[in-house]
Amino acid sequence: MVTVEPRLKLVEAFITRELQAGPEAIQQTGSYVFSAGGKRLRPALLLLVSRLVGYQGDKDIRYAALIEMVHTATLVHDDIIDHANLRRGRASANSRWGNQLTVLLGDWLYTRSMELALEVDDLDIMRVLSRATIEMIEGEVLGLSLKGRTDITVEQYLEIARRKTAELFSAACAIPALFAPEYAGFRATLSEYGRNLGLCFQIVDDLLDLTGDQDHLGKPVFSDLREGKLTLPLILALPKFSPEQRQAVAEVAREGAFSGLEPQELQQWLSETGAFSQAREVALSFGEKAAALASSLPAGFERDALVAAPWFVLERDH
Amino acid sequence: MVTVEPRLKLVEAFITRELQAGPEAIQQTGSYVFSAGGKRLRPALLLLVSRLVGYQGDKDIRYAALIEMVHTATLVHDDIIDHANLRRGRASANSRWGNQLTVLLGDWLYTRSMELALEVDDLDIMRVLSRATIEMIEGEVLGLSLKGRTDITVEQYLEIARRKTAELFSAACAIPALFAPEYAGFRATLSEYGRNLGLCFQIVDDLLDLTGDQDHLGKPVFSDLREGKLTLPLILALPKFSPEQRQAVAEVAREGAFSGLEPQELQQWLSETGAFSQAREVALSFGEKAAALASSLPAGFERDALVAAPWFVLERDH
Repeated sequence: MVTVEPRLKLVEAFITRELQAGPEAIQQTGSYVFSAGGKRLRPALLLLVSRLVGYQGDKDIRYAALIEMVHTATLVHDDIIDHANLRRGRASANSRWGNQLTVLLGDWLYTRSMELALEVDDLDIMRVLSRATIEMIEGEVLGLSLKGRTDITVEQYLEIARRKTAELFSAACAIPALFAPEYAGFRATLSEYGRNLGLCFQIVDDLLDLTGDQDHLGKPVFSDLREGKLTLPLILALPKFSPEQRQAVAEVAREGAFSGLEPQELQQWLSETGAFSQAREVALSFGEKAAALASSLPAGFERDALVAAPWFVLERDH
Repeated sequence: MVTVEPRLKLVEAFITRELQAGPEAIQQTGSYVFSAGGKRLRPALLLLVSRLVGYQGDKDIRYAALIEMVHTATLVHDDIIDHANLRRGRASANSRWGNQLTVLLGDWLYTRSMELALEVDDLDIMRVLSRATIEMIEGEVLGLSLKGRTDITVEQYLEIARRKTAELFSAACAIPALFAPEYAGFRATLSEYGRNLGLCFQIVDDLLDLTGDQDHLGKPVFSDLREGKLTLPLILALPKFSPEQRQAVAEVAREGAFSGLEPQELQQWLSETGAFSQAREVALSFGEKAAALASSLPAGFERDALVAAPWFVLERDH
């Protein structure tokens, strides 16, 4: 997505300016969180789609920044540590500044992004944004209520992935279609494209948590399972596991740590059942659906980039 | 505020309906939090002002519910426990369901209330709501950054109280003036009335935390100081305290607990310096300002209730 680079810099500048207008503690924690990087995938998609539909103005910068602010708000709130669950420590915003400031940083990012959308009076876009935000929050709630459970189904997993991740991807891709009435015809395709790309992305993300190594991921392997969250490969593998193997997985999910079982051993088991390649197939099918949807869009560099995006997502190793 | 009772019931029903449309975990935690009661002061003010301006429709129910949802969101987020600060345990939502679900409940309430405002397309009201929300969050951030500090000034205290509390009171009172163009002339007075009433309310609230008893308050006396927060009476008293007395207060603020000093002893010291009555005078002056502003509004039962509201706030004992 080479052509969006310069505008992505403007998005960064927009976010920096916003943070600097906030109270000192927001400036500090906010710049720490944003300077940590991240793939800026959602703003990049929004910028790319804006060019695809032929948009020439500056709203894309604002909404790309908003999307990244909303995304970051969910990330920092996701890092709030439960007092029942102190063992998972990592250098998240929360471990540096405590839960209280972290919760306020997330609140500030959510509310400020709504306020920034209000400045430009675009009710339809605000509806898309707030609906995606509600979906994300409800996806997290659903995920939380299934924590520690080993009877989660593929349907439940996909429902959570859709709400938690895919709906914001969908919003990022659909918003530019609302920049002018003449782009409206693209909205449904772009929205569905983003949803499928988001599902592909989330499954790959979950796969990497099981197959990657700590140095690449920046967090321990199996961190989802350590938090009691079963992801697609495990859900697919469990019915094929022996009762003892299932027992061992349930224990990690319950205790939040590997004790009787080695992570490498579990990776081996998953690999033997074919769960990794099966999950990859599912990710691939969403990626292919996204690519097919993108193919129907107007020809050009932007369309090619959207068609190619799922392959980049599928190829990433961290 | 007897005449708003029936409409307040509709507000409760609105909130209940909203919660029931959410995921199960939101229903459960949400109804727990709302059923705990609360004075419903902000929605009552909004309903009262709606009648005062002569509004006949149903928007007042919706916005009264939204205001209470936003208020509740801040309350539940305020209860998120810091891992550095586990000692303060109480039967908050967070101690029943953990930080993670509590943070999501707050996020859901914030975002859903924005979405409910979007359903009725009122951009000006949304701006008032989101500005008040940002002010609240920034007020909390400011308060947090001064936690444990004993050099906080009266100006800083009032700034925090204004942002954290008074701006939402102000929004509750100003919103009905935006229901129709012919009410617009009342907006500035109502907004300023709410702000002054809110400041009066917050100072009284802080006074009660220092003078009340646990049974009435539903929480231990000096809970603010135990959280490292100095409120008006203490700020006014500190310069009159001896170095040893100041030292003792600083220790409670730092350690989050009374060890060398008895709460009754500190109450005695505060009483001796006249800090309680001095703080009460400040609350009174904001109450009087509010009452004077209300007096300029159209005559009738509603105006009388608004004029009387500060006296109820000043008289309350829990």
